[in-house]
Formats: sequence, structure tokens, C-alpha cells
Amino acid sequence: MSTMAQTGRLIGVGTGPGDPELLTLKAVRALAEADVVAHFAKRKANGNARAIVAGHMKPGVTELPLHYPVTTEISKNHDDYKAQILAFYEESAERVAAHLAAGRTVAVLSEGDPLFYGSYMHLHVRLAHRFPTEVIPGVTAMSGCWSTTGQPIVQGDDILTVLPGTLPEEELARRISGADAVVIMKVGRNLPKIRRALESAGKIGRAIYVERGTMAESVSMPLAAKSDDQAPYFSLILVAGWLGRPGSVSASGAVL
Amino acid sequence: MSTMAQTGRLIGVGTGPGDPELLTLKAVRALAEADVVAHFAKRKANGNARAIVAGHMKPGVTELPLHYPVTTEISKNHDDYKAQILAFYEESAERVAAHLAAGRTVAVLSEGDPLFYGSYMHLHVRLAHRFPTEVIPGVTAMSGCWSTTGQPIVQGDDILTVLPGTLPEEELARRISGADAVVIMKVGRNLPKIRRALESAGKIGRAIYVERGTMAESVSMPLAAKSDDQAPYFSLILVAGWLGRPGSVSASGAVL
Repeated sequence: MSTMAQTGRLIGVGTGPGDPELLTLKAVRALAEADVVAHFAKRKANGNARAIVAGHMKPGVTELPLHYPVTTEISKNHDDYKAQILAFYEESAERVAAHLAAGRTVAVLSEGDPLFYGSYMHLHVRLAHRFPTEVIPGVTAMSGCWSTTGQPIVQGDDILTVLPGTLPEEELARRISGADAVVIMKVGRNLPKIRRALESAGKIGRAIYVERGTMAESVSMPLAAKSDDQAPYFSLILVAGWLGRPGSVSASGAVL
Repeated sequence: MSTMAQTGRLIGVGTGPGDPELLTLKAVRALAEADVVAHFAKRKANGNARAIVAGHMKPGVTELPLHYPVTTEISKNHDDYKAQILAFYEESAERVAAHLAAGRTVAVLSEGDPLFYGSYMHLHVRLAHRFPTEVIPGVTAMSGCWSTTGQPIVQGDDILTVLPGTLPEEELARRISGADAVVIMKVGRNLPKIRRALESAGKIGRAIYVERGTMAESVSMPLAAKSDDQAPYFSLILVAGWLGRPGSVSASGAVL
């Protein structure tokens, strides 16, 4: 490895929830300064983060797409799947490390915020102790969604619970039941299970479904009006807190 | 009131966690287009949000500072305090409404994200059903803090719990105990209580204290190394999840 002074910088760049105007000034500058722009993607797809920054890519910049291995026929809980994914992250980190060691600054795109459920984290934990590293936070998908629907999500002493929809139904129901405000991420094919959990927690009536928040083709509706088919993985469900707000309706039906 | 076509727009503008470069392109545009820029502030102080946008204020734009009433001698739980604050929000909403009704677009600054514990919400719930309204999400203080410290906060099936430090000690301890990753907001004079709650939940060793994340004078350290005096209200405490990450240490002390 070359000495520290000669290495490039690793920059995790949050690209925000979808609307390219929700890039930060700092993210735009990082794209202007980077020698290499990397992003994770499925094969034959460029991914949302790359689409968001399309208008800010420097002509002639080196691109490093990191394509997930095709493992659709293996269960995600299978050891073979885990081994393939771990090997992929190791290999991806070494591909980025080679650029950094050669003195090139690498911007790694990350939809939303890099350290909030982002793939960038798999590079960060492998490289941040080896190279100068900076993380540029981004607007999260959940902020984008509750802003699109205009839902005040938490105020005052409210507790916010963020739940991946991949959790077992009983745990989802238990967590939803004990929460003031809830965001459920990773909806997709978990939607029927999430709906049952919201029903058993008595909060289905307050749940809002949001798809592609902040993007031109954004869709939102009460979850009660949404069918169980065709929810994208990156859709969200919101249950807003702040039940004591002026004009809101209490559990007993009284207008506060 | 004038007809809808003649009214101005209400825009809740998230200004991000502190670094002016973490403004979004959309927030900068909103500031360039607004006729009036409003912000909440204590008396004789301009507030963080106003400081963040200082470099983007249009020369000659009308400013509308909304100064909280001075109520330092009354307890926050006292009915007189609540009545004064409610009257202040009503009066503030009507001051903004007067500009909107006259056809002027009003940008209301909100540190972090407007609908995430933001004062803007008090205007939103009073005005969004009366005037065309848009909310521009921002990078939250918590994203700013975990990016500054480089802490991957949640990954995979991790649950994130966001707790106001104003909650009673027992509830804090119970919630921290049952969580994967925790963010504790509104630290300030609640720090000794929060520390006890983290201790009784067995998570004090993983807690990181962050002050003014993303700002030049940012400070962060293990909570164990931080004294109980002089924590600003807007400092945060982070307990990161993703305990199974490569290189992390399990509860039993094994390196994973």
C-alpha cells in the first residue's frame, strides 16, 4: 500500500430519496471532485442512486458499478447465499481499495442516507480504518415519504420506531402496538404480513402506504385502500404520531 | 381571503443538521424564490436554521422571525405555559397566513427535517388545509451525527428506536433495553437521567455522545467519557445496531 499522503479518499455519498433536487450541495461537490464514482446495482440495472445523480456526473469520470451476484434461486437464509454475498462485498471492497491505494478519490453512491440501511456500509466497515473516509449524509426515504404526504411524523415526546418489513409477523405486531409513530421499510412482498401485524396492533386505520416518495411517479394512499399485490421493495408504510395535535382526532373520536 | 389562484405558497424548508453544504438544491431554490422567509427563534437569538441559510438569503427579502414568548419562570407542564405557547403558535400562523393571503410565498426554515420534531409542524397543521403547501425534507440531525462519527446505525433487520430524552427514566430504560439501535434526542439537562437509563439497560458501553454533528465545532466521544454538565439541548446520543457486522464484537466479546 502507498503511504497515507498518496492515497485517495473514500466518500460515502447520500443521494437522497429520489428527487434529484434533494441532493445536498455537498453531494454535488463530491461528484464534481471524485475520480471514480461507484454504486451497487443488480445485474443489467443501474440502480436508483445512479439515476438520481445522472445530471451531476462529470464527463469522462471513471464509473465502477458493483453488480450483485445472481442468487435468485437460493434462499436468503441459506449459507450458500450468505457466503456468496460476503465474498461479493469483500471483492467489491478490494476493487474500491485498489483505486484508493492508487491515489484516486472514490465516491460511493448510496440512496437515501449511507449509514441508514445502505449498501455503502459494507464498504465502510472494510475500508474506513484503512483509508481517509468521509460520509455525506442524505435525506432518507422515510423523510421523503412523510414530506410528500405532508404527515407530521413525530413531535414533543413522541417515540419513532423504524421497522424492517422483513421481521416476523408477531414481532412486527408487538413493536407496532407499543409505538407512537412507526415507519415500516422494505415492504414489497412483505405487505400481506405487515397488514396483518397492523390489524392486530389496532393501527391499520392510521397507516399510509407510500411508493416512490418525492419522485414524479409517487403514489400514496391509506393502506386500507391498497391491494396486496405489486408493492415495490422500496415502498414504505407510515403511522404518524403527534395524536394530540390541534385538529387531530383522538382514539375516542373527539377532535382535539 | 383572496381566491386560491392569488394566494402564495407555504413551503416548509428543511435546512439540515448544521453544515450549510448539507442544504439540498431544492432548499436553496426555495430560498431564491420566496417572498418571505420565516423562522422560529428565542428572543434575541436568530436560531440555528437562520444561521445555516445565511449564505443563501436573497438581498432585500422580507424576514419574519417568530420569537417564542419568554416563559422561563413557568414550568412546561403548567397550564399557563401551554396556553401561552398555543396562543403563540396561533398568532404565528395568522402572521404567516396574512402574507400567504396577500399572494406572497413564505418559506419557513426548519432545522433538520421539518416534519421530524420540527417547530414548522405547528404552522403546517394550522395552514396546510388553507393554502397550497409543500414540504422540502432535510437531512436530520441524527443522520448528521452518525455520519460525523462514521457509525453504521442500522442494517438488515435492525430496528431503530428514536427516543426524546425528555421521557421518564423508566420508560427510557425499557425502550433502550428492547432496541437494536437507539438515537436519543433532546439531551441537554436530561443527560444524567439518560445515562442512568443506558446503564440499567446494559448499553452504556456502546453509547456515543455527539454535539453539533456536521458543524465545525462538532464534538463526539464515548458517553462514558462525557461529564454530566453542559450538554446542549441539541446534542444526541447514538447506540449503533448491526452487531453482526464484520469486525464488530459480539456480546460475548468474540470478534465477528
